[in-house]
Amino acid sequence: VKYTSGGQRNDPALKPTHADVSYGPHERNVIDLYLAESKTPTPLVLGALRGRVVLLHAFQLLCPGCVANSIPQIQRIERTFAQSDLQIIGLHTVFEHHDAMLPVTLRAFLHEYRIASPVGVDLADESSPIPVTMRRYQFRGTPSSVLIGRDGVILHQTFGAEEDLVVGARIAMALATSRGSE
Amino acid sequence: VKYTSGGQRNDPALKPTHADVSYGPHERNVIDLYLAESKTPTPLVLGALRGRVVLLHAFQLLCPGCVANSIPQIQRIERTFAQSDLQIIGLHTVFEHHDAMLPVTLRAFLHEYRIASPVGVDLADESSPIPVTMRRYQFRGTPSSVLIGRDGVILHQTFGAEEDLVVGARIAMALATSRGSE
Amino acid sequence: VKYTSGGQRNDPALKPTHADVSYGPHERNVIDLYLAESKTPTPLVLGALRGRVVLLHAFQLLCPGCVANSIPQIQRIERTFAQSDLQIIGLHTVFEHHDAMLPVTLRAFLHEYRIASPVGVDLADESSPIPVTMRRYQFRGTPSSVLIGRDGVILHQTFGAEEDLVVGARIAMALATSRGSE
Amino acid sequence: VKYTSGGQRNDPALKPTHADVSYGPHERNVIDLYLAESKTPTPLVLGALRGRVVLLHAFQLLCPGCVANSIPQIQRIERTFAQSDLQIIGLHTVFEHHDAMLPVTLRAFLHEYRIASPVGVDLADESSPIPVTMRRYQFRGTPSSVLIGRDGVILHQTFGAEEDLVVGARIAMALATSRGSE
Repeated sequence: VKYTSGGQRNDPALKPTHADVSYGPHERNVIDLYLAESKTPTPLVLGALRGRVVLLHAFQLLCPGCVANSIPQIQRIERTFAQSDLQIIGLHTVFEHHDAMLPVTLRAFLHEYRIASPVGVDLADESSPIPVTMRRYQFRGTPSSVLIGRDGVILHQTFGAEEDLVVGARIAMALATSRGSE
Repeated sequence: VKYTSGGQRNDPALKPTHADVSYGPHERNVIDLYLAESKTPTPLVLGALRGRVVLLHAFQLLCPGCVANSIPQIQRIERTFAQSDLQIIGLHTVFEHHDAMLPVTLRAFLHEYRIASPVGVDLADESSPIPVTMRRYQFRGTPSSVLIGRDGVILHQTFGAEEDLVVGARIAMALATSRGSE
Repeated sequence: VKYTSGGQRNDPALKPTHADVSYGPHERNVIDLYLAESKTPTPLVLGALRGRVVLLHAFQLLCPGCVANSIPQIQRIERTFAQSDLQIIGLHTVFEHHDAMLPVTLRAFLHEYRIASPVGVDLADESSPIPVTMRRYQFRGTPSSVLIGRDGVILHQTFGAEEDLVVGARIAMALATSRGSE
Repeated sequence: VKYTSGGQRNDPALKPTHADVSYGPHERNVIDLYLAESKTPTPLVLGALRGRVVLLHAFQLLCPGCVANSIPQIQRIERTFAQSDLQIIGLHTVFEHHDAMLPVTLRAFLHEYRIASPVGVDLADESSPIPVTMRRYQFRGTPSSVLIGRDGVILHQTFGAEEDLVVGARIAMALATSRGSE
């Protein structure tokens, strides 16, 4: 993906922390991440994630289903798989109420909900309310999540809530895949 | 209460819709309400509330306990007492993350969470992070709620979540009081 | 109601503790209660309940909806209205799996679920799987509940679960009725 | 294990369906199962379970924690792993209220709670309130569960409730072990 100029956007601070990073063999296996600032930095070098299982969860802080179901589930996933090499990455995919969910709002939200894993801001698209990564992954809305295997291939993509048992089993299956099988 | 000048505040639009309205005999029985704009206007003339039971609930949209517990409870109260003359009034009492919870954020929040009853914005205080009504009622935090009887006297004030059974019983008791007993 | 002979039943111990007790003006306002034995006796003289609000809840210990919803709700009602003169009375209305739910099973159930209010066993009917009180009240199944006002008149009768807010409000309304209004 | 005589027990029908069946290399790897009768028989030949993952869950039908938490979790596990070769086995380990939880009560319970996987009755011990299998596994109470790997070795044993995410992940990990690794 190419952005002719970040400067055309209202907030020039919103340059991707990591742009167009490839995380797999497929042409769609690129991601732009906009890391929320943090006093306790949680650096993320996507290139280094090859070989690890990645759980990407897309949400909006004003989405009732996200706040009631998927954010608490992410907190439980963080706790359950703390000893594994699972990498959880949040993606704030604002596709409505853009004025209401600014980076400063997201920062306060992450603080209040004690999300420990890194969260990026999906890049706003000047020609559409749908942000760039959301459109590329064809998310139907929020919450959405993507589970990426050690080999960079998408194992599962879903819209809406799923049961903890199913999610726990799926992540464990992905983690059980040996690195040698990449 | 006197505000030397609303104009000293950043957002001159934030004048109270109704300031210093008395709703009871006590000196503390005044309220400032800042009604969120609405396409389907829900006018509120506080003076007209004398004789009705009023449930005032204070919240912040980034307060996890409010979103998980008190907002859904307010929705259930709206439904349960829809046929009564109970007047529910929300109060957005921002005492932290002020930059993150702007009126535009509140408006989107109310839309997403389908709050039907009117919600005011507590007046920011230039000399303190605690807004004016919150300080006056001495709320310890959010969520807080105040139940006001038909005679304008505070029947109950609480901080934190309470069980539905208790809340339902208390509101019903207040409603059962005849208007003649004011 | 007349039972030709308690002796015709398998368990002659199952005579009603209180039979045909009138609790209101209507011909249907009679109840048979079979109190579960208890080491800490909870005496119940139905005639003395006139003037009090009575919540009668019918359940079966093997009814999943009863165990998941109505029994915990009864526990919350016991707690919430502990200071009121509400009288809660359980009724074990076995209409299926009769062999599986003996008095000894009920006794263990009440112990494990810490039901503090008295519970009677609905009288089995020799000619029908539906026990006597259940048929008389025309309960459609379990859980069912009946709220009886201070004057002995049924205020509300319901089948299935209801929201705590609704139940709390209804009981409070009944309690708010003065004894003088009987 | 030796039972001097099944005939000494009150209910001579309670002979184990499968006694002392070995399911692994360890001396403790034997189990007695008493299958609840069923109109739609669910045969279980324990010897045939070698090579499969087995989840053994011990419960009592009058145990509130079992009914509120572990039985619904077993239902979710049945659903989540329906396509796998996981074998779920229930064990009714009555260690209190023996008179209250007869086989007929268990049968009605399994019917009402729609447990699809086979359930055995733990053999009562004439010299102790603790039944035989419960004592052998040293269960501290109910609910308890044991996860047995494809090779017959106990992977995990727990007392009380665990989070769905943890349980789902653990079962998936066990299932991910190839049969060749036995």
